[in-house]
Amino acid sequence: MPRPLLEELDTPALVVDLAVMERNIERMAGLARQTGVGLRPHAKTHKSPWIAHQQLRAGAIGITVAKLGEAEAMVEAGIRDILLAYPILGEQKLSRLERLLNEADIILSVDSLEAAEAMAQAVRRSGRGRARVFIDVDTGLRRMGLGPGMPTVELAERIARIQGLEVAGLMSHAGHVAAARTPEELAATARRAAEALVETAEILRRRGLPIAHVSPGSTPAACFEAQVSGVTEIRPGTYVFNDRNTMDRWAAGEADCALTVLATVVSRPAPDRAVIDAGSKVFSSDPSVRGDGTFGHVVGWPGVRLQRLSEEHGVLVFDPDHNGVQLRVGDRLHIIPNHVCPAVNLSDVLYGYRDGRVVREIPVMARGKYR
Amino acid sequence: MPRPLLEELDTPALVVDLAVMERNIERMAGLARQTGVGLRPHAKTHKSPWIAHQQLRAGAIGITVAKLGEAEAMVEAGIRDILLAYPILGEQKLSRLERLLNEADIILSVDSLEAAEAMAQAVRRSGRGRARVFIDVDTGLRRMGLGPGMPTVELAERIARIQGLEVAGLMSHAGHVAAARTPEELAATARRAAEALVETAEILRRRGLPIAHVSPGSTPAACFEAQVSGVTEIRPGTYVFNDRNTMDRWAAGEADCALTVLATVVSRPAPDRAVIDAGSKVFSSDPSVRGDGTFGHVVGWPGVRLQRLSEEHGVLVFDPDHNGVQLRVGDRLHIIPNHVCPAVNLSDVLYGYRDGRVVREIPVMARGKYR
Repeated sequence: MPRPLLEELDTPALVVDLAVMERNIERMAGLARQTGVGLRPHAKTHKSPWIAHQQLRAGAIGITVAKLGEAEAMVEAGIRDILLAYPILGEQKLSRLERLLNEADIILSVDSLEAAEAMAQAVRRSGRGRARVFIDVDTGLRRMGLGPGMPTVELAERIARIQGLEVAGLMSHAGHVAAARTPEELAATARRAAEALVETAEILRRRGLPIAHVSPGSTPAACFEAQVSGVTEIRPGTYVFNDRNTMDRWAAGEADCALTVLATVVSRPAPDRAVIDAGSKVFSSDPSVRGDGTFGHVVGWPGVRLQRLSEEHGVLVFDPDHNGVQLRVGDRLHIIPNHVCPAVNLSDVLYGYRDGRVVREIPVMARGKYR
Repeated sequence: MPRPLLEELDTPALVVDLAVMERNIERMAGLARQTGVGLRPHAKTHKSPWIAHQQLRAGAIGITVAKLGEAEAMVEAGIRDILLAYPILGEQKLSRLERLLNEADIILSVDSLEAAEAMAQAVRRSGRGRARVFIDVDTGLRRMGLGPGMPTVELAERIARIQGLEVAGLMSHAGHVAAARTPEELAATARRAAEALVETAEILRRRGLPIAHVSPGSTPAACFEAQVSGVTEIRPGTYVFNDRNTMDRWAAGEADCALTVLATVVSRPAPDRAVIDAGSKVFSSDPSVRGDGTFGHVVGWPGVRLQRLSEEHGVLVFDPDHNGVQLRVGDRLHIIPNHVCPAVNLSDVLYGYRDGRVVREIPVMARGKYR
């Protein structure tokens, strides 16, 4: 197959600088090695078995997924060690879970007795009869999970009494670190959250429950979490590509962003405005953690702001005396999205390139698997 | 095939009350008939040929699409009269356009000489040799298009001199009406925008260019646009389903919203909070025109706010003394999304129901066609 030049690729397209991605994968694997924790990357960022296999080859102990459909896509591609970080409810999903348990080594996750009891039925019906479960703990995000300390301890002990479930770990997602206004505040918030998880595990151990795994997870928090004594594994996802929000949370530079949206200028209707062919159907509408209402970092054009998105249009604005006025219809731009995970979920394929040539189409096999 | 009950459907799912959708289709067709304008619905809302055919049977003169890939999906399904409301640039797309012109009756749209010249090449290479083109005019949205009056007149006259292109109409999208704070302000803004389009067409006619079509387009503006003398067609899209932003722009009530997200409560971690299994991968992150940062209208649960979305989680919040505290893990809710178009783009299928039974799976054939 001839390898097309990046410049020949039709737009909009999600393009991946494979060398940068490989460096990101190796760097996070190195952090895990150096700090002696396991690495269980969240595959929701790439949704691609080909990339998950690279993470495993670099030393990851397994992967994390959010939904059953993502787990199925990964098992289909030969991946065996998967944390399914979502409560599974309803007959259709419990039947799928039963099949999945027979095919791979699945760790479950739960934050309520109701979901634990439902999932235990699927576990007992499966050939294994028993499954490990992580209790999801709220260390500050205010999404899933009871609080650390006694609320989680009491829930874990009740779940441990359910036949078929082995409470093997505690997990959390420290997404609330994104609200930090300084790197110091982010580090302190990340450490405090991980420590709360470790302390809760210690209470459970003292009371007789052998909690083997303590698993916080977040890309900007990863390097702080990994250094907290008692943490056994980390679950960052975004690091594989990084994005503008990761940059704005002091965890990546522009050169660490492996994935960009390649877009074409389709209109120059005003001196201070250009329109590109990529809108919220490519970037998603996820906001910037800056709170300035912009939607991406335009590489090589400082001062050109991706100010508005509609579904098929991205509106770039700049001062009329800015060099943005040089943008012409047909010009092509690389733009780093605010949040790379939902952008990947909007595409069926990513284009991997090296040295300016597209060398691989990466199918987003687990795209759209929200069930 | 047995017809499953809506209650048996796995979640999250996008479900369509077919009776409400049919009423919406008929009502807009009736408005067009009564006001004597053509109706050319924007198919980006449903992305489904099955629904487009219903709109055509109800009296639509053709459909509108945003991207070439959407046009191809519609032509594939036998639809012939299509306004392709986007400038087409780049060799790959121009080759596709050439094929498309041979297969269907495509009206082009453009807002620059550069794009017009590129598209004219594809037109001249095609079997037809000639195509109608609408000039896209900025009547206030500040996205595509030059301003009404002389900027558009001069562009239209230059494009009319390009061999192969027949400047047949002026079009606009009055998306800026969504910023109105009162129904009166919305009506006035919509009328003013449509009148500017009509006046520009009249200038062009006086100067010798026979502009047959004057085409504004927006669901909340539609009934005002249709009554402006000189408007020949309207292009609303959202009306087929309606959504929360349409409700908040006084153009639909809850009972007019045909599409809801069916979701299940998966966690009740705190007295004032419940979590559902649908997040931004189902709703999209598109904001509310209210500016209150919420993401949908929870049908039957006033006071329960869909306050936050992450990719796989929707966080419902309510006062601790509110009846929302009765929500239990496993409960199912219908939620009207802020913006229905990007939600549809995130699903491969919609579930059509009547009288509580799922009677049809509607494939979203043009999902993800951003090229």
